[in-house]
Amino acid sequence: MTHHISLLTDYGLNDEFVGVVKSVISDIAPMARVIDLTHGVKPFDVRGGSLALARAIQYVPDGVIVAIVDPSVGSARRAIAVEVAQGRGIFLGPDNGLLGPAVALAGGAERSFELTNTELHLHSHGATFAGRDVFAPVAAFLANGGAIEDVGREIDVASLMPGLVPIPTQENHPVHGEGLHCEVAWVDVFGNCQLNIGPEDVAHMGDVFRLVMGEDVRSARLVTHFAEIDGGAIGAVVDSYGMIALAIDRGSAAESLRLQEGDEVLVFQGDSEISTSSVTLRSTK
Amino acid sequence: MTHHISLLTDYGLNDEFVGVVKSVISDIAPMARVIDLTHGVKPFDVRGGSLALARAIQYVPDGVIVAIVDPSVGSARRAIAVEVAQGRGIFLGPDNGLLGPAVALAGGAERSFELTNTELHLHSHGATFAGRDVFAPVAAFLANGGAIEDVGREIDVASLMPGLVPIPTQENHPVHGEGLHCEVAWVDVFGNCQLNIGPEDVAHMGDVFRLVMGEDVRSARLVTHFAEIDGGAIGAVVDSYGMIALAIDRGSAAESLRLQEGDEVLVFQGDSEISTSSVTLRSTK
Amino acid sequence: MTHHISLLTDYGLNDEFVGVVKSVISDIAPMARVIDLTHGVKPFDVRGGSLALARAIQYVPDGVIVAIVDPSVGSARRAIAVEVAQGRGIFLGPDNGLLGPAVALAGGAERSFELTNTELHLHSHGATFAGRDVFAPVAAFLANGGAIEDVGREIDVASLMPGLVPIPTQENHPVHGEGLHCEVAWVDVFGNCQLNIGPEDVAHMGDVFRLVMGEDVRSARLVTHFAEIDGGAIGAVVDSYGMIALAIDRGSAAESLRLQEGDEVLVFQGDSEISTSSVTLRSTK
Repeated sequence: MTHHISLLTDYGLNDEFVGVVKSVISDIAPMARVIDLTHGVKPFDVRGGSLALARAIQYVPDGVIVAIVDPSVGSARRAIAVEVAQGRGIFLGPDNGLLGPAVALAGGAERSFELTNTELHLHSHGATFAGRDVFAPVAAFLANGGAIEDVGREIDVASLMPGLVPIPTQENHPVHGEGLHCEVAWVDVFGNCQLNIGPEDVAHMGDVFRLVMGEDVRSARLVTHFAEIDGGAIGAVVDSYGMIALAIDRGSAAESLRLQEGDEVLVFQGDSEISTSSVTLRSTK
Repeated sequence: MTHHISLLTDYGLNDEFVGVVKSVISDIAPMARVIDLTHGVKPFDVRGGSLALARAIQYVPDGVIVAIVDPSVGSARRAIAVEVAQGRGIFLGPDNGLLGPAVALAGGAERSFELTNTELHLHSHGATFAGRDVFAPVAAFLANGGAIEDVGREIDVASLMPGLVPIPTQENHPVHGEGLHCEVAWVDVFGNCQLNIGPEDVAHMGDVFRLVMGEDVRSARLVTHFAEIDGGAIGAVVDSYGMIALAIDRGSAAESLRLQEGDEVLVFQGDSEISTSSVTLRSTK
Repeated sequence: MTHHISLLTDYGLNDEFVGVVKSVISDIAPMARVIDLTHGVKPFDVRGGSLALARAIQYVPDGVIVAIVDPSVGSARRAIAVEVAQGRGIFLGPDNGLLGPAVALAGGAERSFELTNTELHLHSHGATFAGRDVFAPVAAFLANGGAIEDVGREIDVASLMPGLVPIPTQENHPVHGEGLHCEVAWVDVFGNCQLNIGPEDVAHMGDVFRLVMGEDVRSARLVTHFAEIDGGAIGAVVDSYGMIALAIDRGSAAESLRLQEGDEVLVFQGDSEISTSSVTLRSTK
């Protein structure tokens, strides 16, 4: 039997934090197989981390998933274990909403425990380094076949902090009319800007959209592949997660459109000519 | 038997892309051993990725090598498997020249296949994420002992896109005379600038070279170790790949000489005194 | 039996250096388990690398530890193996002080050898890439059960270059009186600034300190958790390594205090009111 432990943190790779967490795991559970989902979540960005975990979760092997983005480490927030899918998956992390969206995608929390069994933890000379002292040894304990009941006291799954997923809302704009108020959920390394909408949300709008981003008005065409985007034009691609992403061919849409994660984007049924002229008028700054 | 899967991409480590690729591999082929060659190729830099793979390839264990730098993902470019060395190595990647130099160094392509067997692939809600949906499951299939004949239809190895390796040319310069027109093939993390020439190319020039880089003229001395470079001077080191690299002791030659990958460097038989005075005259900008 | 090889370098992850080192190890010792402690040590920063290794070492599993930060690669500096803890740990690295603090924390060097057995090494076309050509194959040899006596000639442990650990000194300041002259040993990814003092060094000073950093005078309060730091205030936390670290809640103390690794910080017994007023007077720049 293979015991996977998958890790997602905001520790970065410049310090030895991740290496120490994996050292603790390897020492206690030498046969566990550790997968780094990413350690590049921006420091303290619980929302960004929760979305990255949600995007990854359907591909993660059965086993233990440790996710740590923990701005309030050391405070009263609980460290938790959440069981999903009849025990095929156990999430470990802070009870701050980070796990929520992924847990929901994995079928929802079936049982949850607070990591109160300090006999499983490492003891530090000072402040607790939760990844090293709590989550790593508990993950290794579980990977070794330990029972979730032994990690601490059971808590009500209804008491878990829910994840925050940005929901698009209806927009009634004085100039552009009815549309969708969306948000940039994710900017990836290539500069693609994933919005918090899927193709079903814009199915009634046709193939051309008018995008309003602050002062900027641009036109985007729905395409199915990045390679279908004309040079310089903006594509609205149904990306590999089934969401609408703004993209340009072989370039960074985030840079071109000056978008960051969390920025608002208004989406309207668009007429390419109208919005192209808007672009001409407004993009000359 | 050990089944290695070695990975090289331009995905970076800030997103969960690499983690998801490895999750898919681990889920299908839990006993495969995955080696990250690098994920730090600059986005869309096929040339840089192909050179990194070529530098690494002689050290990579037998098995499957997955390389992905794919600016035209989703277009008509083929996804391919290339067999080398009587099946001891199988390369997977886009047919865009990325694999070419490494395949050549591994003895050349013996058979090649297009990854047309979609039964092996994962199915996405939207655009294909080729690393996750095509290359990872096919790599896992091969690491599990699957036959290369089953990944898709065989294609002519002569039809594969060749790799682009920059070749030095003869230079006949009005001021400096006969020399070599070279290019910076690679700038490493320490700022060493590898040129596309080996020691045999400059064997007739002696131990001192005059380097012309745009307006800048500098002198460099051939040395066998970084530690032989005098403080502030430029060394032309035969680097650990057997190529000539411009280097300075405990500092960044790229920063000092303002060189980037792809920049041209003209190399002439040099007289240290002449070129040193050139340095004095010209470096005061 | 599990054979761990733990790695710490300044190679970064943008080049294929780390991937090649791991390829060589996997080729020779396919069953070795490799742990990346970190490859994010700043280029040539022997001091920073030695402190990162020292922080990690108590968590590293028994086995081989390879540490490479090597500004003088190729010069006369020796490549060494250092045995600790009755052979439960063997350090490999350059003899430049990098290993010293970690070796001391692991109980001190019991035997040491210079890696003079070139039969174990790989042979390069040019300059030696020590990680790839010397340390990786020797680490793999040891992980395969090879004897340390076979890596080269034994050398006197007293001849090893000692590690440089910054020691706090007494300060007698004309304005602030008696205090401690400290140094920023480490700035982590969150901006926490670890000083080279522990709580025992400041036990006589009470709970409030006056910090003098160049022109800047600030007040800090001793706290046991990051979450106890008031908004905007500076906490002196006993961190998870048992050292005093300057921190602010959910923000970067390094940015706020403009501190870098190696900067000096004078610590005095402080009166919160006095030092707060100092802050008021001086922080308005």
